Amino acid sequence: MAEESRRSIGVGLIGFGTIGKGVVKVLAQNAGVIEQRLGFPLRMVAIADLDTETDRGVDLSGIRFDSDAEGLIAAPDVDIVIELVGGYEVAKRFILAAIGAGKPVVTANKALLALHGKEIFAAAENAGVDVAFEAAVGGGIPILRSLREGLSANHIDRVMGILNGTTNYMLTEMEQTEEAFEVVLKRAQELGYAEADPTFDVDGIDAAHKLALLTAMAFGAELTYKEIPTEGIRQLTPIDFELAREFGYRIKLLGIAKCHRDGGEERIEARVHPTMIPLGSMLANVDAAMNAIEVRGDAVGPTLYYGAGAGEMPTASAVVADLIEIARELQRGGAGPVAPLSYLPHHLVPKPSVALDEQSGRFYLRFTVADELGVLAEIAGALGENGVGIESVVQKGSLESETVVPIIVLTHRANEAALRDALAQMDELQQVKAPTLVVRIEEEV
Amino acid sequence: MAEESRRSIGVGLIGFGTIGKGVVKVLAQNAGVIEQRLGFPLRMVAIADLDTETDRGVDLSGIRFDSDAEGLIAAPDVDIVIELVGGYEVAKRFILAAIGAGKPVVTANKALLALHGKEIFAAAENAGVDVAFEAAVGGGIPILRSLREGLSANHIDRVMGILNGTTNYMLTEMEQTEEAFEVVLKRAQELGYAEADPTFDVDGIDAAHKLALLTAMAFGAELTYKEIPTEGIRQLTPIDFELAREFGYRIKLLGIAKCHRDGGEERIEARVHPTMIPLGSMLANVDAAMNAIEVRGDAVGPTLYYGAGAGEMPTASAVVADLIEIARELQRGGAGPVAPLSYLPHHLVPKPSVALDEQSGRFYLRFTVADELGVLAEIAGALGENGVGIESVVQKGSLESETVVPIIVLTHRANEAALRDALAQMDELQQVKAPTLVVRIEEEV
Repeated sequence: MAEESRRSIGVGLIGFGTIGKGVVKVLAQNAGVIEQRLGFPLRMVAIADLDTETDRGVDLSGIRFDSDAEGLIAAPDVDIVIELVGGYEVAKRFILAAIGAGKPVVTANKALLALHGKEIFAAAENAGVDVAFEAAVGGGIPILRSLREGLSANHIDRVMGILNGTTNYMLTEMEQTEEAFEVVLKRAQELGYAEADPTFDVDGIDAAHKLALLTAMAFGAELTYKEIPTEGIRQLTPIDFELAREFGYRIKLLGIAKCHRDGGEERIEARVHPTMIPLGSMLANVDAAMNAIEVRGDAVGPTLYYGAGAGEMPTASAVVADLIEIARELQRGGAGPVAPLSYLPHHLVPKPSVALDEQSGRFYLRFTVADELGVLAEIAGALGENGVGIESVVQKGSLESETVVPIIVLTHRANEAALRDALAQMDELQQVKAPTLVVRIEEEV
Repeated sequence: MAEESRRSIGVGLIGFGTIGKGVVKVLAQNAGVIEQRLGFPLRMVAIADLDTETDRGVDLSGIRFDSDAEGLIAAPDVDIVIELVGGYEVAKRFILAAIGAGKPVVTANKALLALHGKEIFAAAENAGVDVAFEAAVGGGIPILRSLREGLSANHIDRVMGILNGTTNYMLTEMEQTEEAFEVVLKRAQELGYAEADPTFDVDGIDAAHKLALLTAMAFGAELTYKEIPTEGIRQLTPIDFELAREFGYRIKLLGIAKCHRDGGEERIEARVHPTMIPLGSMLANVDAAMNAIEVRGDAVGPTLYYGAGAGEMPTASAVVADLIEIARELQRGGAGPVAPLSYLPHHLVPKPSVALDEQSGRFYLRFTVADELGVLAEIAGALGENGVGIESVVQKGSLESETVVPIIVLTHRANEAALRDALAQMDELQQVKAPTLVVRIEEEV
């Protein structure tokens, strides 16, 4: 148990945007309670940002503020460096510089860690300094700590969750208001939930970055981002939400990672896509911009972690929790004993992945077809020929003025490759007027 | 980051019941993955239990097994002692003996910690050894770690949750089958969810023990069990579940703790009772023997942790996670830096509590009255005289043969003391045939 001492730990922040502002606020407003847990003060001493003009509306007394990030890293009163610059090259340079200076780093940069984590964690290990990144996944939810420490006794076999608040807000809105993707996206942008270029969020890339980190940590697999098949939410329309509910599901953008263990061999399945999950499940009940991650271990069974996945104060909560943990270790004279990716570095090994083609499941298919006799027979035929069984069909009656109608098919359990063959065959049909929407169904949630 | 070394850590287990069996299994089946995270093996070397005859059906090769707990504590190859004896006096003696021998302890004994935690944690602090108890609250859910480390940057203002799996199973069954308390209790006992003497579970005592620990950790309040007003689930009948749903609620046995901060003063509200919570909320969706705890912090907002709250393997998952954490610290030569109750010991201070009488909220009242004219007027009168406003009334039509009927009242927000005055006044009425059921309503979940 910690003994209190007089020393304080100095924190330097690079990147003074929304989250950085939150960190300054949390350190100020909760200084007392933090010291009651930590035993000594944690002080923000320096901030660096290219924009030193904009008034962030937070009290900066006693804090140096300029545009000199290198100077901040080198400053003797900066014990821990927070990287909140975002992006790849510049952020990576600052992180490696801090590690090179023997200073631990806290970052929320999932994109950077998913792509360059291997290099960064190796540098940190060689230098014997901590790199902490709780804020990179699930915002304020302590999901990485839980995976790394709370569930450390388990073989984890599945991690599955709502990893992106922007798209969860949009899906909730589309379902409730029956508005189109573009309308809801515009509102999300006005509310500050979505960025001007929404690609990272709506195409599932942000969720895939986070899933890459979770996959490595859950299964001891070497960090590999590029292998995660990813689909976003652009194709969804109000009718899909309506029918999902009729069938007993809700649609959520999920990151899903499973570890298949056959004898000694482990193979990893990871994917990000809109998913139909049973109405009564915990994940189906997660609305608006909230996140939730389910982790299943062989001893503990299913567990779930829920909270705000983004935003100024929730993300700052995770950043400051990392600061507190690192400060404790600095006080003891070094780095923490827990490996950043849960498995000790030399036990993180490349693990083969299960290709999407090998996977199977049930599917919701929405065909966009000419309102003609015989189309349904063509669809049923093409699916049947490829071994994809039909469980239900819904043909929404067309208005007289419409010549294109949706036909919805729920399949029995089928192989992904077989399904894609069937869809390719159907895309040849002149009655099929647009690419077919595929939403995977996950029953066991 | 940890360096791997050759040393192994020896574990001794006192109390070889269900959870102890789970611990032996988890250490055996997950030895490989544990070592990949920890860097060295964790070995069960000795078990002590008064019953050395019963075959537990687990492999004990390489493990000493006898009835000599003192010998186990003293054994030089036992580095960490697990206490799974349960109860108060004997368990406390073993824990203090282990601490006295300079050995860290892992326990799941919430009853003991709620009542004698102050003495035990003080002894551990003096001796400089760890006492870990993740398994004491929420079974396999890493809720204590999350509170202590994941949310360490926050002022926590509320902890609220389903802390007892037995009663949650029973409430779920009573709601779904419309069976009476006694019928469902019998089934829970047959399934092993409830004990022969179900008092600790069904009267809310187990939940109160857990809430006492959560309250101390969340608010930095000195551990005080006796002050928690506690009500169990014996009084609930099928009609209550039916009406709850009609009003838009589900009934859950909740432990609720809030910290009221007025200026510099902090006052603690803590209580355990059946509670109506909105149908759409995350907690309302937690079924069967599962547990879930919501923790709200000033920076992070609401967060929730869900999983199996009891059972052999989930509880063992938490015990072994504690072993792993302690083993890391032993390898570094001492105790961990995080205070067991989150706040450093000298910052755990007695904090005044808010008496139940001072609290207010909305109430569901079920009166059991003679089926006579004028009864409703009497009830409305008594409530009105005491300042308790009525929001809705439901009088369930009686069968001709019945002379006693239920009248259900949903109140507006009212003070607890005023409500109790009104109920006392009504108990005087000869038309009131049984004590009135009170279920509190919690809207903000």
